[in-house]
Amino acid sequence: MGLTLTEKILDDHLVEGELEPGEEIGIEIDQVLTQDTTGTMVWLQFEALDLDEVQTELAAQYCDHQTYQFDFKNTDDHRFLRSAAGTYGAYFSRPGNGICHNVHKENFAAPGKTLLGSDSHTPTPGGLGQLAIGAGGLDISVAMGGGAYYVEMPEVVNVRLEGELPEWATAKDVILEMLRRLSVKGGVGKVFEYTGPGVESLSVPERTTITNMGTELGATSSIFPTDEHTREYLARQGREEEYVELAPDEDAEYADELTIDLSDLEPLIAKPSMPDNVVPVREVAGTSVDQVIIGSCTNGGYEDILPAAKMLEGRQINRKTEMIIAPGSKQASEILAREGWTAELMAAGVNFSEATCGACIGIGHVPASESVSLRTFNRNFEGRSGIEDDNVYLCSPEVATAAAIKGEIVDPRDLADELGDLEDPGFELPDAYDGSKTDIIAPDEAVDDSLIKGPNIGNAPIGEPLEADIAGEVLLKMEDNITTDHIIPATSDILMYRSNIEKLSEFTLSRVDETFAQRAMDADGGVLVAGENYGQGSSREHAAMCPLYLGIEAVLAESFARIHRANLFNFGILPLTIDSETYAKIEQGDDVEVVTDVAEAVEAGEEEFTVRVNDDWEATTTLKASERERRILAAGGKLRLTKQQYEDGGDAAPADD
Amino acid sequence: MGLTLTEKILDDHLVEGELEPGEEIGIEIDQVLTQDTTGTMVWLQFEALDLDEVQTELAAQYCDHQTYQFDFKNTDDHRFLRSAAGTYGAYFSRPGNGICHNVHKENFAAPGKTLLGSDSHTPTPGGLGQLAIGAGGLDISVAMGGGAYYVEMPEVVNVRLEGELPEWATAKDVILEMLRRLSVKGGVGKVFEYTGPGVESLSVPERTTITNMGTELGATSSIFPTDEHTREYLARQGREEEYVELAPDEDAEYADELTIDLSDLEPLIAKPSMPDNVVPVREVAGTSVDQVIIGSCTNGGYEDILPAAKMLEGRQINRKTEMIIAPGSKQASEILAREGWTAELMAAGVNFSEATCGACIGIGHVPASESVSLRTFNRNFEGRSGIEDDNVYLCSPEVATAAAIKGEIVDPRDLADELGDLEDPGFELPDAYDGSKTDIIAPDEAVDDSLIKGPNIGNAPIGEPLEADIAGEVLLKMEDNITTDHIIPATSDILMYRSNIEKLSEFTLSRVDETFAQRAMDADGGVLVAGENYGQGSSREHAAMCPLYLGIEAVLAESFARIHRANLFNFGILPLTIDSETYAKIEQGDDVEVVTDVAEAVEAGEEEFTVRVNDDWEATTTLKASERERRILAAGGKLRLTKQQYEDGGDAAPADD
Repeated sequence: MGLTLTEKILDDHLVEGELEPGEEIGIEIDQVLTQDTTGTMVWLQFEALDLDEVQTELAAQYCDHQTYQFDFKNTDDHRFLRSAAGTYGAYFSRPGNGICHNVHKENFAAPGKTLLGSDSHTPTPGGLGQLAIGAGGLDISVAMGGGAYYVEMPEVVNVRLEGELPEWATAKDVILEMLRRLSVKGGVGKVFEYTGPGVESLSVPERTTITNMGTELGATSSIFPTDEHTREYLARQGREEEYVELAPDEDAEYADELTIDLSDLEPLIAKPSMPDNVVPVREVAGTSVDQVIIGSCTNGGYEDILPAAKMLEGRQINRKTEMIIAPGSKQASEILAREGWTAELMAAGVNFSEATCGACIGIGHVPASESVSLRTFNRNFEGRSGIEDDNVYLCSPEVATAAAIKGEIVDPRDLADELGDLEDPGFELPDAYDGSKTDIIAPDEAVDDSLIKGPNIGNAPIGEPLEADIAGEVLLKMEDNITTDHIIPATSDILMYRSNIEKLSEFTLSRVDETFAQRAMDADGGVLVAGENYGQGSSREHAAMCPLYLGIEAVLAESFARIHRANLFNFGILPLTIDSETYAKIEQGDDVEVVTDVAEAVEAGEEEFTVRVNDDWEATTTLKASERERRILAAGGKLRLTKQQYEDGGDAAPADD
Repeated sequence: MGLTLTEKILDDHLVEGELEPGEEIGIEIDQVLTQDTTGTMVWLQFEALDLDEVQTELAAQYCDHQTYQFDFKNTDDHRFLRSAAGTYGAYFSRPGNGICHNVHKENFAAPGKTLLGSDSHTPTPGGLGQLAIGAGGLDISVAMGGGAYYVEMPEVVNVRLEGELPEWATAKDVILEMLRRLSVKGGVGKVFEYTGPGVESLSVPERTTITNMGTELGATSSIFPTDEHTREYLARQGREEEYVELAPDEDAEYADELTIDLSDLEPLIAKPSMPDNVVPVREVAGTSVDQVIIGSCTNGGYEDILPAAKMLEGRQINRKTEMIIAPGSKQASEILAREGWTAELMAAGVNFSEATCGACIGIGHVPASESVSLRTFNRNFEGRSGIEDDNVYLCSPEVATAAAIKGEIVDPRDLADELGDLEDPGFELPDAYDGSKTDIIAPDEAVDDSLIKGPNIGNAPIGEPLEADIAGEVLLKMEDNITTDHIIPATSDILMYRSNIEKLSEFTLSRVDETFAQRAMDADGGVLVAGENYGQGSSREHAAMCPLYLGIEAVLAESFARIHRANLFNFGILPLTIDSETYAKIEQGDDVEVVTDVAEAVEAGEEEFTVRVNDDWEATTTLKASERERRILAAGGKLRLTKQQYEDGGDAAPADD
């Protein structure tokens, strides 16, 4: 049986497990990327590992989310990240140099390599044959420390492309069509592998628009084979030597297959407020438009902005519509400026922005109330633009520009008919991507050799290896369905402390009991008790990190939400399941002692743990965990385990490598 | 006796008073400008005037402060301002088109005309012979309604320029030298008139750097005569027909005179944290620099950025220093882009921003903690950059760029010696300022013909003509030295409601008594009692507007701070002075009735007003006010008076015009 391209790359990097869908596999990571909102904690965790340098082939730190630097904490974060990259041997991309996915694609993405990134759109370089996966911050820290990345083996789905895109249809319409067919849940647990004769009609930047937005399908990743387009793209970036020919075997077996005939596509648009709410543009034509933005990691490249510039040459945008262009990278900005397009766009009435994620994450250019905004971005979740009840549509640069010209949504084919002199600008690549690379500081040019921490940057908490005894007071007894938002709220007044666990911990469970954090600090540790479904909701790791910081050693709950349970293991907190009788009987303030020798029992694979309450009565609790989870827990969490493995001289390299 | 240039322009526009220093004069206003943070209230007040259109020759509304549109309220404000400009016949400069002073200079500033603007750097176009003055928002509304602007006749000071600037010294060093000599208080109540043989060595953009920053001297305005430079500047902007030859009489008498020999100047720098803390650059050479920003209304023109571009051509900025360029206008951005300089700057590592006030007012690119920032701006007050304890230096673009190259403060003369191939870029003007003007919407192209108010935009309160009776409960009795910060706090959570008086009024005097606003609303009016120096501190008009909205009809205080007292007149609230005995005796909750016929007594010029308390005892209070103040008060405030004058068919035009 032949292998899919995904399987081939995974097989090359396999450290543990079998390539069976649903099975947990461990893979070696070649490259990692982090950005500025997730990167500070990644590096603080890496600092806690106490290693001298990054163990992956390449690590790259980007500053792209908070580049307007509205608060000194943003600027401090950027300085800290520069110092971390310098200290530990990562590349540092300066604020203003662009979005991580764009800059990584331009400078580092390599066919056949694995990339792990602390950003959900990490799969972008799948467009040039890299297997790229988004993950949590701790996974990145561990990978940088040489640890494998563990993931459920995804199903590989074949997306067969046929034909060629007709006039005015673009790569954005390919992925919008995928979303229209499959919905935002259609890709969960899957990798989409694009194949078929239509592939060769798409350039690398078009392919990365598709792989980038595979994230909106919920996919683990998306990937294209490599070909002459890939080689030429790398050559234009001065990196032809990194080209590798990659394709699935001819007899590869896919879990599923679907076909898109490119020639059937037409301009599509995702209506508010979900990326899969896709209809033909003509269906919403005539809707008045207040704001148009071209940019983001999906459509912020040189090739994405060029069509807008060509469409606007000699024209002006509608006076009632604001149009902003935020290039995805400075490479894009610089080439556009050098070729004169920036001046043309400005003359047409466009507001040209710094290269930043910016508006896509609600930072800057928030729409006016009760207004319509057309954006070339990848997400239009309600409120993401920075205002509740927003009306954000997602579309191609061509559709966005047509709306800016007419002041309302219009199919560019119809606008072309109306104007008479508007032509499909097509998709054009430059001779070379000759934007300078002065904004990337290589490890050997590093400015700093030690960490620079502003007053809001603390340390990452790290667990201690499990001991025989766990005992303490029940500091809080909670109801069913406590969310991670209850454990650590994400309102903006609290979110700003995400690099400062000491400060952030003051808010732990404050929505349940305002006195909790102080009591936990005073008690020097203790345990938590909860009902069903403890830790549901957002995957945030801080919901385990802050209790760890406060000294919580165990959580006794009737049941745990899946991701939070994993986070408790990852941070070395013992998650014990109790029955409803025990839940009913145990009270806040009780003294709890785990009678079983915890360290020994966890390592021995035991499932039953006896708990003694107030030295008065006993209950049986259970720990169901895989061998890997037990190893992590016993070690005191994933960070501690990685640190230990490194100290023992082990690493994550596959045995046959 | 000959006239100064200032006196000539004032004489041409005089509506009331004599040109004697210290005397109040009323002048006709030809042009007004407003920006986005002050403009909303200006237009709401104009709306309250109930006029069909702006009465000045020209009104221009700019969007420059909040152009990153961080919050939907910013975007809503911009939409409202566009609708106000369209409705009432003003020019509208779109967000992204640049800073009001730069765009006004390029498009509208005209020699010999008067300009009133709701921004402290309004005097900028003094560099081309316009008499331009910054004022409060209500003054702008009144001027737009056809009312005169009243100001104390300033002293006119002759600044005689001799010689020519040596290499690496710039216009910025001229104004820094002025600040070094005269301090930030040295210009209070004065207009600086630049004369002498050195004038002709300075181009218009250099002159406007000087006049712009005259504001930092505390000056009422600064002005240059016109000459061939002025004509050429206007011709390059396509406005040569607006040229007028203007100069002081040869025998003009000045209140004071000082001489600056330009050839004596060298690169200067203002150290933290005051613009007059000026020393030679060499005195602080070697200070490590984290951030450099070129931009603002002082040094954000094409000619200001060009030297930086030339200095950086073929070089890179220091890796430890971030450099941001925020052009003052899109005209500057567009020409720089068209000539290829934008691409060169990007290649050197510069982060190129939108055209905005931005960082100069602490919005974006806030310095990191304990870092040094060199900026070409006009102010470095502590905390203005967005972080307390900042270290912001002010200097020329050349000094800023030299620091970006070396990573530390360095006199560019010394850097030139060190590098061997760095030359003074000089000051170069373009052939023509050919940036397009699509971002200015003229009144006849207006998008809107009615106001568009988002949910945060309310109405301006307007007083009612004084009646015979004023009576009500003492809703609050306050101590001495109540500030306008007590009356209306300016913390950011409250500041965001400055366009929403209804909402803002909820915070009135909340720092003194949290129940006050609600009690005032419930009581449907009443009076305030205070000790000495009521209303000291910031000049904010909202400290009168909000009490007016809550129905306060009179304030009884032992004494009033000067500006707040004027604001009480302007908003139609009766300020009565009481003696210490009355202050001691009167209590919160007392019923107060002004026995004197208020309307009649105010108009008749009476100074004594009898007040009856609890129908039990009486006290004599006093009102000292000029005839103009009495007219304003009787009418129900300045807005109401202007409205009334307009309805009566009167206007502010001088009798002999």
